[in-house]
Amino acid sequence: MTQAQDARVILVGNELLKGERRDAHLAFVGRAMLASGMQVSTAQVVGDDRVEIARVIREQLRGAKVLIVCGGLGPTHDDVTREGVADALGLPLEFSEQHWKEIQRIFQKFGRRADKSNRQQAYFPKGATAIPNRRGTAPGFAIERDGCFIAVLPGPPQELIPMMEKVVLPRIGEMFNKRPLFTEAFRTAGVGESAMTPHLQPILDRHDAFNVSSLPHIGGVDIVITQKPDVVDRERVKRQAQTFEEELRRYLGAKLYAKGSASLESVVGRSLVESRATLAIAESITGGLIGKRFTDVPGSSRYLLADVVAYSNESKVTFLGVSRKALEDHGAVSEAVCREMAQGIRRETGATWAIATTGIAGPSGATEEKPVGLAFYGVSWDGGVEIRERVFPGNREDVRERVAFATMLLIYERLVGASGPTRS
Amino acid sequence: MTQAQDARVILVGNELLKGERRDAHLAFVGRAMLASGMQVSTAQVVGDDRVEIARVIREQLRGAKVLIVCGGLGPTHDDVTREGVADALGLPLEFSEQHWKEIQRIFQKFGRRADKSNRQQAYFPKGATAIPNRRGTAPGFAIERDGCFIAVLPGPPQELIPMMEKVVLPRIGEMFNKRPLFTEAFRTAGVGESAMTPHLQPILDRHDAFNVSSLPHIGGVDIVITQKPDVVDRERVKRQAQTFEEELRRYLGAKLYAKGSASLESVVGRSLVESRATLAIAESITGGLIGKRFTDVPGSSRYLLADVVAYSNESKVTFLGVSRKALEDHGAVSEAVCREMAQGIRRETGATWAIATTGIAGPSGATEEKPVGLAFYGVSWDGGVEIRERVFPGNREDVRERVAFATMLLIYERLVGASGPTRS
Repeated sequence: MTQAQDARVILVGNELLKGERRDAHLAFVGRAMLASGMQVSTAQVVGDDRVEIARVIREQLRGAKVLIVCGGLGPTHDDVTREGVADALGLPLEFSEQHWKEIQRIFQKFGRRADKSNRQQAYFPKGATAIPNRRGTAPGFAIERDGCFIAVLPGPPQELIPMMEKVVLPRIGEMFNKRPLFTEAFRTAGVGESAMTPHLQPILDRHDAFNVSSLPHIGGVDIVITQKPDVVDRERVKRQAQTFEEELRRYLGAKLYAKGSASLESVVGRSLVESRATLAIAESITGGLIGKRFTDVPGSSRYLLADVVAYSNESKVTFLGVSRKALEDHGAVSEAVCREMAQGIRRETGATWAIATTGIAGPSGATEEKPVGLAFYGVSWDGGVEIRERVFPGNREDVRERVAFATMLLIYERLVGASGPTRS
Repeated sequence: MTQAQDARVILVGNELLKGERRDAHLAFVGRAMLASGMQVSTAQVVGDDRVEIARVIREQLRGAKVLIVCGGLGPTHDDVTREGVADALGLPLEFSEQHWKEIQRIFQKFGRRADKSNRQQAYFPKGATAIPNRRGTAPGFAIERDGCFIAVLPGPPQELIPMMEKVVLPRIGEMFNKRPLFTEAFRTAGVGESAMTPHLQPILDRHDAFNVSSLPHIGGVDIVITQKPDVVDRERVKRQAQTFEEELRRYLGAKLYAKGSASLESVVGRSLVESRATLAIAESITGGLIGKRFTDVPGSSRYLLADVVAYSNESKVTFLGVSRKALEDHGAVSEAVCREMAQGIRRETGATWAIATTGIAGPSGATEEKPVGLAFYGVSWDGGVEIRERVFPGNREDVRERVAFATMLLIYERLVGASGPTRS
């Protein structure tokens, strides 16, 4: 990694080290740095301790071109990041009458009054430039030291993200005049990482301008290519990106379901909108998870008619018209009931497409013939109805996630006529 | 912080620094260390770089009693953690025939074959003890150096967590014979952090055996007390914990909805089961999120009958019996329709309790009278029906989360007859 690209991140907060909260910044900052032509080489989490914060800042400053410090700018006595930064740089803290007025104004806007604890938020290391915060009361600040740009930002993501986008990233762009590294992500499903590797390797070997990472997750494998920092020929990078994508698509077919960060549910949704089709869902084991996923995407009301979570047997009869005979003969977790659920919700709503799930998420509910993880899921459309049976591994959450994803993958495959050389 | 308690964490993976994945370990490890009487003083994220991994391990070893290294034990050429650890400790890597056989056996169990890339997973630094991995192919390992216990574990949480619980934590307990610090969490909702602080401060002042953190999140404020490391009188700690809880309950009433980590939905669910009551849900704006939340909790089938996500107007009529007149006169996002949804789902299912939501999550869908964030949510029971109207701040995801939480809080308050001195 060349020195010019080296960015570091420091995350401040006892709650991160005690496991009371998960960090919400590093992923965003890491992506933002890459997009600015920088690369985060290390990140460090420290507690709310002035001495420790100062020590880690001094350490991380060595060789860094950008240092982003997140958290600890609030009004409580735990918030000591501004002191730690000032100590690390050997600078006094100075009170800014102007920013104290600004802080009071923001409180007024929120219908509250700034008290004297908020006054400490108007102190900045001498020579620092305040970074305005439109979503909260704590301003951030920026300062340069020996060619390194240091930005200190408040903890809440809804405050930090716009401050990064509006002030920090543009300033980094000005200072270093870096071109971002070319990067592209491909989302795939239905082929496991280990099955994919022997097919992927020869493709990678033909494309030496990139570092490639494959990121398996519960719903599939993402493949991310990133321009090697020492490759400067932009045209070569673009040409290789194109042939890489072509070869990947030739191997995976529609199992490569998106380029970029689009979710499978958004791809299914777009396909439904494009074909002026509608969707209805009948869930049991997934309990609303599939509906939540589709409605996470803005505009889902254009195709989603209804999602009936028929958790009890009686509700399967009432809302979906599942027959009591199927329930009695086969039980709620059965191919027959899943079929009637898919057909029933399609009939009740008049939707073009319908999907359904039933199964045993655990930890209890298993019988001798029906283990935890057993699920039936299916799709119904004017071409028929198709039900699949699988035993999914993992705990309750895993099983539900896997069933939801498998169901979305099934309707995706029927919608786009997916096929590829490898079936999982 | 006393030296004896000092634990450090190193998280390995380019994907964490590039923002391709969020860390999933630190929160778990931090909590586990606290529960073992240790405290994580710092955590560092490093890329898949053998030299860098070795450098950071050497640095973090200074003064540490426990070092947990997560990730980078897989079969690919990116996985260089074992080499980094060996370099840091100046130890050669040795091949273990026994563990290579074990890896091959695990592959067989999964119906696959180990290939030569997996062979590297059978190498360990000389003198290390393997930590078996029942959920994946990569064993971890443990080694001691100058009184510091070092555990190196694979990345996937479903593999790491049981290895921590079965091997690492018991070993730490043996080595350091530490009593865990006393810690307790209280979950509250319905009072904002700033409104709470002036009431909380005098209570905190009377309880000096604890460090206290208040953790606001989208659904409320968690209050966590942790024994100060220098307080050794266990009886004093316990007495203070008891009076702290009493005073907190006196102030918050039922707004303190749980002790520990129980979710609001699990508290509502338990209350329903205890009163042999049932629940039905009608969602629009929340699109399945509330159903998902309740069914995340094992045993929810004991009280949840059905959740109808009636996204289209037609489905509100079909499944919930909402009147066309209400839809035409007031629109789908209205108090009248929310009321008919809550009453309708209760009537259709015969549930004891019913909740309903309708609103505009954005980014589109707003009108002059109905802004993004506007939501109606309500509860219906044999005591009547109660509908609330609010404009929630934030983006689509925030709005949906806030509506879901507010709805659950409303049924919780009606169920337990919640009251407290402060209303938000």
